[in-house]
Amino acid sequence: MASSAQVLDHILGHPPPATQSIAYNFLVPNIKGLQNLLAVTESNAPPTPPSTPPAQGESPAPITSSQDPNETPSDTSATSNTSTTPNHPAPVTPEISLFAAATEAFSKANTNCTIAESLDRCRPIVTLAKSHNLRVRGYVSVALGCPYEGLDVSPGKVAEITATLLEMGADEVSVADTTGTGTAPRTRELLRALETAGVASKDVALHFHDTYGQALVNTVVGLEHGIRTFDSSVGGLGGCPYSKGATGNVATEDLVYCLHSLGLRTGVDVEMMAQIGAWISGQLGRKNDSRAGKALLAKL
Amino acid sequence: MASSAQVLDHILGHPPPATQSIAYNFLVPNIKGLQNLLAVTESNAPPTPPSTPPAQGESPAPITSSQDPNETPSDTSATSNTSTTPNHPAPVTPEISLFAAATEAFSKANTNCTIAESLDRCRPIVTLAKSHNLRVRGYVSVALGCPYEGLDVSPGKVAEITATLLEMGADEVSVADTTGTGTAPRTRELLRALETAGVASKDVALHFHDTYGQALVNTVVGLEHGIRTFDSSVGGLGGCPYSKGATGNVATEDLVYCLHSLGLRTGVDVEMMAQIGAWISGQLGRKNDSRAGKALLAKL
Repeated sequence: MASSAQVLDHILGHPPPATQSIAYNFLVPNIKGLQNLLAVTESNAPPTPPSTPPAQGESPAPITSSQDPNETPSDTSATSNTSTTPNHPAPVTPEISLFAAATEAFSKANTNCTIAESLDRCRPIVTLAKSHNLRVRGYVSVALGCPYEGLDVSPGKVAEITATLLEMGADEVSVADTTGTGTAPRTRELLRALETAGVASKDVALHFHDTYGQALVNTVVGLEHGIRTFDSSVGGLGGCPYSKGATGNVATEDLVYCLHSLGLRTGVDVEMMAQIGAWISGQLGRKNDSRAGKALLAKL
Repeated sequence: MASSAQVLDHILGHPPPATQSIAYNFLVPNIKGLQNLLAVTESNAPPTPPSTPPAQGESPAPITSSQDPNETPSDTSATSNTSTTPNHPAPVTPEISLFAAATEAFSKANTNCTIAESLDRCRPIVTLAKSHNLRVRGYVSVALGCPYEGLDVSPGKVAEITATLLEMGADEVSVADTTGTGTAPRTRELLRALETAGVASKDVALHFHDTYGQALVNTVVGLEHGIRTFDSSVGGLGGCPYSKGATGNVATEDLVYCLHSLGLRTGVDVEMMAQIGAWISGQLGRKNDSRAGKALLAKL
């Protein structure tokens, strides 16, 4: 399998046609990982000097989630861009991902260091990334249950780690229910702890796994608390090597179908997404884990 | 495959050990069906005359759903009966099911008559069943979407049919999202129409299919409107021959896991239910369609 650097190198060299900017998420376990990323982006830099990069805070956020790319405060139209035919290569915006965990046991298993050490390691990476105008996404794993420490993960600790990542410069923190054991009441408690810690809902993404079938119920709780960014994976791909029985993220098709059913606009063509889910599941020889995806395809 | 009458005959003759009464649901398409049921129950009647049956309205409701059998207004204990070892045969209470549909096209396809004709056929069946102290459960199919008429099913029409079934003597009406196309806003609209029509929430059950993955989100809407009876099937068994791509009911394991996560008591041992789901799926050679069931078994 190609390395992350090879994949990014290919995408930067051969940008696929698309109507929107593509965010390529580059997992950075340490400073060396970021140096690899910078080497790839620099070797793919256009020969003429690019225009001045926008000042920090003004750069358009790449689409990493189901957030509606068309949604602006003054946008009242009901149209989406789904019927637009892409006829030009998409700008590719790399962003980096940094992982912290909400429990010491998971931190040790996943990154072989304490939570405090993992945050200390993140700091220079964020500084270097921001000096290159890279978008930084932090993650807090096992925020609603840990395979080692159980369900009693401290919401206050999750909020503290989230605030620390944001303070060191992360653009967004994805709070992750890695084990899928999150429930509606505990999701609410966690979101209240984040509010109490002064974390703005716009800086938080929620990352649910549908292992126990509760991802959409928890998503609705997130929506009620002002969260508008939700992670998902087409066809429900993914999993977690450190969490036995864990399935992938909630399927993008199920999430988008749910958001649309609530009257929210995502800019995503859910039927086209269902076709992608079926295709990638076939390519990987795994079953399509999206209910809405399979139902939409059965109807077509 | 054994007929419904043969299955009931066997259960009445060989009641399985259980801690609670078992409700055997007998689908009654016409008055002849009810006569078949009465013949089976009478041939299995005990040789000594039974004690006077309780007056109508006093008979204990058999458990047909996830409603907590232990829950009474004065019950504040947190115990459940799940650790009790059954050591006596369970009383078997037959109940009958009567179907109506919310749309004319589905009524024609499913029962070959108009909605009004199907209700006219139900009336003498309900009268005869009640004269034998049988519990009667009505269903209103395609209440949140019809494979023939689409999503615009009239909530007022569903409420009218529900009220008619209750007025003719049905003990409960299960309002069914046969196609799984129900969404949270449309479920809310339907429940408001039922309230407006004077239908009490205690007389209504909700019956969701998880075809598009929205069953639990819709269940939460039902809970918010006071509904406490929800249909489900272990392992997500089932389907609908008249609704292409329709999957089974929401899996009992997923529903119970969700209800427990919200702090509700169901009297169901969800881990034991997960084992039953895996067993029956294996027996039927179909995949286990419960997320919580599979996740609980992976953890055990």
